[in-house]
Amino acid sequence: MMQWYVIASLLTILTSSQGILTTLSQSNGGYKYDYATVPFLAEVYKLIVSAVLLWRECKRSPPPKMTTEWKSVRLYPIPSIIYLIHNNVQFATLTYVDTSTYQIMGNLKIVTTGILFRLFLKRKLSNLQWMAIVLLAVGTTTSQVKGCGESSCDSLFSSPIQGYMLGILSACLSALAGVYTEFLMKKNNDSLYWQNVQLYTFGAIFNLARLVLDDFRSGFEKGPWWQRLFNGYSITTWMVVLNLGSTGLLVSWLMKYADNIVKVYSTSMAMLMTMVLSVFLFNFKPTVQLFLGIIVCMMSLHMYFAPPSTLVDLPLTVKAAPDSAVEVSVDRRTDS
Amino acid sequence: MMQWYVIASLLTILTSSQGILTTLSQSNGGYKYDYATVPFLAEVYKLIVSAVLLWRECKRSPPPKMTTEWKSVRLYPIPSIIYLIHNNVQFATLTYVDTSTYQIMGNLKIVTTGILFRLFLKRKLSNLQWMAIVLLAVGTTTSQVKGCGESSCDSLFSSPIQGYMLGILSACLSALAGVYTEFLMKKNNDSLYWQNVQLYTFGAIFNLARLVLDDFRSGFEKGPWWQRLFNGYSITTWMVVLNLGSTGLLVSWLMKYADNIVKVYSTSMAMLMTMVLSVFLFNFKPTVQLFLGIIVCMMSLHMYFAPPSTLVDLPLTVKAAPDSAVEVSVDRRTDS
Repeated sequence: MMQWYVIASLLTILTSSQGILTTLSQSNGGYKYDYATVPFLAEVYKLIVSAVLLWRECKRSPPPKMTTEWKSVRLYPIPSIIYLIHNNVQFATLTYVDTSTYQIMGNLKIVTTGILFRLFLKRKLSNLQWMAIVLLAVGTTTSQVKGCGESSCDSLFSSPIQGYMLGILSACLSALAGVYTEFLMKKNNDSLYWQNVQLYTFGAIFNLARLVLDDFRSGFEKGPWWQRLFNGYSITTWMVVLNLGSTGLLVSWLMKYADNIVKVYSTSMAMLMTMVLSVFLFNFKPTVQLFLGIIVCMMSLHMYFAPPSTLVDLPLTVKAAPDSAVEVSVDRRTDS
Repeated sequence: MMQWYVIASLLTILTSSQGILTTLSQSNGGYKYDYATVPFLAEVYKLIVSAVLLWRECKRSPPPKMTTEWKSVRLYPIPSIIYLIHNNVQFATLTYVDTSTYQIMGNLKIVTTGILFRLFLKRKLSNLQWMAIVLLAVGTTTSQVKGCGESSCDSLFSSPIQGYMLGILSACLSALAGVYTEFLMKKNNDSLYWQNVQLYTFGAIFNLARLVLDDFRSGFEKGPWWQRLFNGYSITTWMVVLNLGSTGLLVSWLMKYADNIVKVYSTSMAMLMTMVLSVFLFNFKPTVQLFLGIIVCMMSLHMYFAPPSTLVDLPLTVKAAPDSAVEVSVDRRTDS
């Protein structure tokens, strides 16, 4: 079994490449292709990869565990439905707040994921881990604060209240989709590939429905979706598709064998990595707040994942429960 | 014996009033009085208060412990000498960097205090406490980052290298003065007031020397120091003097009965408090970075001072040393 931190590091690298590749795939600040076709093709790519891997698994013995009852299958479109609602809330939020305020509010997702992780998946986190999660959100936000002298200033405290409410709703929905997917993947010990096939079949259907809906909305102005599908695609566009699909596969793996918090750390680190790479690749001006945000996130990472015994000096006698008479005492003994 | 956190909180309140009072004592953005006379009068005030308290202590029995040998007394001017060097380095630094870069670099003092505290006073800090100290420095720096659209922009990365070297030296000297004072106060169990009398006698002498030096430098243009002493003083100016003196007395107490890290937390929290109060009192525009900085500093405070057992879930069996065969096991037993 692969170690979760290998997959998490890979996810960080691919997610941070995604931002760079998407920027590289633009020409003159715009897309020559229809960006809505990218997530659809990524779903198809993930479906094909998972189907092939499942088929290979089926030929070996023992055969993979697959639950095929409708009672189980019907749960798999739910993440797609949550994302659909999330997309619409996102759209509504952006009518009240500007994009940089929206980006800043997006970091709330880190905290809401922690909360739903605790409430729905009943996972206990230590106080230090809660503090680490808050610091991760603060660190990513710090790195995004607009620098002095930048042309467009944040109007973070001046949006209508609806904007903030929708921003919070958006953060909750995004966290819910993640937490629900984790619940789904860990619910039984079905083969990961079989679970993926179900997840991505519905994913592809929902994305296709969106493309068709766009066709009707625009009155087939730009032609039907199958004509727009590969129109204006360059090598970089294909790399964006493969990269997006691969990050999706890694997230699936993490949901089954690690958890949402690991995913949140991976993608937050990726965001910082993209900003650092942008300084070198696109000559972005580095800001003090990027530097400070990175330090805070690194501290948070260490606080969350380091073994507690390496962080604090364990006292030789500690009270286990402050209001009970039970005491925990540590005594050293040689095991060798 | 008073609890250290009462004194630390009092220090925070008085230090943060200091910034407000100093601003209130200005008229039309300038001082009507000679600011150099303020620290001198504060030293005299501290000396009088300490002398009176020592005299009262002498009348009681047992009499206070007082070491009067030259071997001990000669150590008391050293903090004043370090501050004198520090002031000159500060002056030199400001010829290379602008004031806002200097202010940002000032937060380095938090980290250098931690390092010298470890090296000279041989105090052990847990990894979590080290992380807390770094986060405190990052948090205070974050709160000071210039906001978008502010008139004067930080040129933090564009000063000559000498400026940064002198900034680091300045942070080391400031930490050294603090750590040395702690060493001095804890060296023996002499009466705090006797130690204060020695400290402030030299403090008053060095401050007086500075006033006289200023007289000669300016060629007695503004008259001799005793004419400048109370010139232009208002009620607020006297409050600045009393406040500065009182913070000094509290710092002395903390150096003897608590430590430098407690002092660093007190003054950092005071800095944030001043910024928050300025928003209300002087209509300063609150920035996102002030808000983020406060969260980071609060987390740091909790990480440093909270009992470790409340932060982490102690595992029932933990490896004591990863590379040895010794294991620490915890077993529960009822003590009642």
